[in-house]
Amino acid sequence: MFVPGLIERKRDGSALSPGEWRELMGAYAAGQVPDYQMSALLMAIFLKGLTREETAALLDGMMASGSRLDFSALGKPVVDKHSTGGVGDKVSLVLAPLAAACGVAVPMMSGRGLGHTGGTLDKLESIPGFRTNLSLEETRAQVDAIGCAMIGQTPEIAPVDKKLYALRDVTATVECVPLIAASIMSKKLAEGLTGLVLDVKQGSGAFITDPERSLTLARTMIELGEDRGCPTVALLTAMDRPLGRACGNALEAEEAIMGLRGEGPEDLKDVTLAEGVEMLLLAGEKDRARARRRLEEALASGKAAETFQKIIAAQGGDPRCVDDPSLLPQAEAVEVYYARGAGTVLRVEPRAIGRAVVEMGGGRRKVEDAVDPTVGFVITARPGQTVHMSEPLASIFARDAAGIELGRRALDAAIEIGEGKAAPLPLIAARVTAKGVEKPIP
Amino acid sequence: MFVPGLIERKRDGSALSPGEWRELMGAYAAGQVPDYQMSALLMAIFLKGLTREETAALLDGMMASGSRLDFSALGKPVVDKHSTGGVGDKVSLVLAPLAAACGVAVPMMSGRGLGHTGGTLDKLESIPGFRTNLSLEETRAQVDAIGCAMIGQTPEIAPVDKKLYALRDVTATVECVPLIAASIMSKKLAEGLTGLVLDVKQGSGAFITDPERSLTLARTMIELGEDRGCPTVALLTAMDRPLGRACGNALEAEEAIMGLRGEGPEDLKDVTLAEGVEMLLLAGEKDRARARRRLEEALASGKAAETFQKIIAAQGGDPRCVDDPSLLPQAEAVEVYYARGAGTVLRVEPRAIGRAVVEMGGGRRKVEDAVDPTVGFVITARPGQTVHMSEPLASIFARDAAGIELGRRALDAAIEIGEGKAAPLPLIAARVTAKGVEKPIP
Repeated sequence: MFVPGLIERKRDGSALSPGEWRELMGAYAAGQVPDYQMSALLMAIFLKGLTREETAALLDGMMASGSRLDFSALGKPVVDKHSTGGVGDKVSLVLAPLAAACGVAVPMMSGRGLGHTGGTLDKLESIPGFRTNLSLEETRAQVDAIGCAMIGQTPEIAPVDKKLYALRDVTATVECVPLIAASIMSKKLAEGLTGLVLDVKQGSGAFITDPERSLTLARTMIELGEDRGCPTVALLTAMDRPLGRACGNALEAEEAIMGLRGEGPEDLKDVTLAEGVEMLLLAGEKDRARARRRLEEALASGKAAETFQKIIAAQGGDPRCVDDPSLLPQAEAVEVYYARGAGTVLRVEPRAIGRAVVEMGGGRRKVEDAVDPTVGFVITARPGQTVHMSEPLASIFARDAAGIELGRRALDAAIEIGEGKAAPLPLIAARVTAKGVEKPIP
Repeated sequence: MFVPGLIERKRDGSALSPGEWRELMGAYAAGQVPDYQMSALLMAIFLKGLTREETAALLDGMMASGSRLDFSALGKPVVDKHSTGGVGDKVSLVLAPLAAACGVAVPMMSGRGLGHTGGTLDKLESIPGFRTNLSLEETRAQVDAIGCAMIGQTPEIAPVDKKLYALRDVTATVECVPLIAASIMSKKLAEGLTGLVLDVKQGSGAFITDPERSLTLARTMIELGEDRGCPTVALLTAMDRPLGRACGNALEAEEAIMGLRGEGPEDLKDVTLAEGVEMLLLAGEKDRARARRRLEEALASGKAAETFQKIIAAQGGDPRCVDDPSLLPQAEAVEVYYARGAGTVLRVEPRAIGRAVVEMGGGRRKVEDAVDPTVGFVITARPGQTVHMSEPLASIFARDAAGIELGRRALDAAIEIGEGKAAPLPLIAARVTAKGVEKPIP
């Protein structure tokens, strides 16, 4: 294999053969291809694209480097949900225990905060004692026992994805549809799923902001899943404002707990139930309305919350947090944020808010940074809402007065109040399957 | 300096500021930017280009990392010639001593064989004892004493170009006009020249095969030179067939010696004199016809050949080679190659011939390979010539029978005989200066 020749062909817009992609990924996994060649190739991919066949071969090559879970002995449907990332998106914390409470096995592997977005692992770890670094063995055993485990990417799962991801992060090759699709699917398919629900974010707070390209991303991931025997459904959801009210790790964990009790903000509930319905349908439920009823009953009966308690206990955390969220870590400084004018809330810009959470200490600038779980926002202002001068719009949670000031300035920039009409994206814009796009969703 | 941000902007087609380019090159020279970031940036440059201002800033950044010769105390014009590389191009070996014999100081820094092309250093080193690794001090002293030194790139000259070139070579980012231009000019301008003649090759054996782009390359280098106070002239010359008859290191050295005696093939003589005229004009000669006469006299009087002897002696080689080229290393196996049919020679493809010289041992596949100076070809067939069946067209020089066989197959592929008319490129297609393109040349 002559790597410069492969780079040259991709650079000139040609497609490499499936065998070449598999061999290349194998050689990269084995440390035989230096990063400086891979990064030149990644830039050529970014600018010249990959065909469907190439993306599939890249994915297969990435997966071949790692292990794959196998739950076939479980005799149960195994379904996961994955979000492409946003601000205030705590759906996974509600949905994983909820689906498990409805009899679905959920081996959920999540990531950490990235750029302006939060990460499920960081949110879970705001629960005192919660451990996300389970081994594959522990994960298997826990899914067997209680139907769900919520873990980070283990070293055995798609190790070449980890290597590639770190390289893309420092070479400006992240926002590339086929690379994102292959990266996500290499991890999800390694979970040994019988079905997968994708939450593909649209709007200014998503990684892919162009709606056209977010649909392409959804379709690419669906093709990759379906072609490998994993039925895959995507919902395109709004990320032009934060999802729910809480942004920040412990604040979001608390809001997720409210959601598991059937409380919490409407938009969080709507997205959670819509994705839950898709999970149950993929798990064998035939009737959409009955799927929704089963989910609502699991929430109302307390069974979903109880399942979350079991997960927390199994992973070393304090399960009392579910009954008493005040046991979650609390911020030192809290301040209410008031409207600086009257009018209509035109925008609540998620990127500015996500960045502020990072700056206030709630995210990482470098991989080794520690995360402060307590900081963030609870924002009650929604696009379209009419507000009066000095009406409370949000609460700021910080470590100190400087953090409060950072937060206040971020809200000044993020919350736009004025004349005119807000034009938020529909909360759930479309349902995408291998068969096509349904809009509005059923 | 946040390198991924710079890569991202170039990736998206924006121009970086001159200050950013200079800072980046400085940081790369200092080892503060890893190769994997630089190679992603190189690929983005390859696919998105550089503006004139960016190319200039890149060049300045590259030059800032190294030393620069200064011949101002010499009180003499200092002019060099550079070729973009081809097959059979031994012009430098004739022209450097010839121009020096006419009173021009020539501190010629050349390269080694690259890809299918030969390199001046390898040709010079076929002369027994010839040493090309002079220090800058030795170079300065020799130019003072005899008007010319013929050396390789020293570690002090544009070290970042050396690093970048090695990286481009393994990441498929070589054939990029602004990168080639900046690389060549970073070395040439470091020679402290008062004028520069560029031989920009056109046709299938050149690195840039598209004639349009070879003109762009010429113009880019002229701009870079002129803007830095070095008057620069380019000739666009044919590389759709080998230049002269000899291809291979010692064979080319021998042909160059013939050229210095006023003998040798016409095309070699024409290109050498055309470039020599430009060198003398840049050195202060006002009259084009007189410049040509001075060159012809230096050849006829033996002064040019004598200057080459002085250079050889000063650099540790055996100067008797000039009077007796049989002292150059001789191939073990020699065989005549005959026409396999009758008709017109339609093409003599230089790339196939250059590659065969490498395969026969006369070039490098890896940097550390040793070069066999004796192998190669002397090809008398020229495009447009009518040949009979079994007419001798070339001689093959090799180490053994296997080498002869390799050579024969290469000539089978390279020399196309058939019906119809050959359509070779004009030997010297155009003269390019800061003022514009002259065609045909004066």
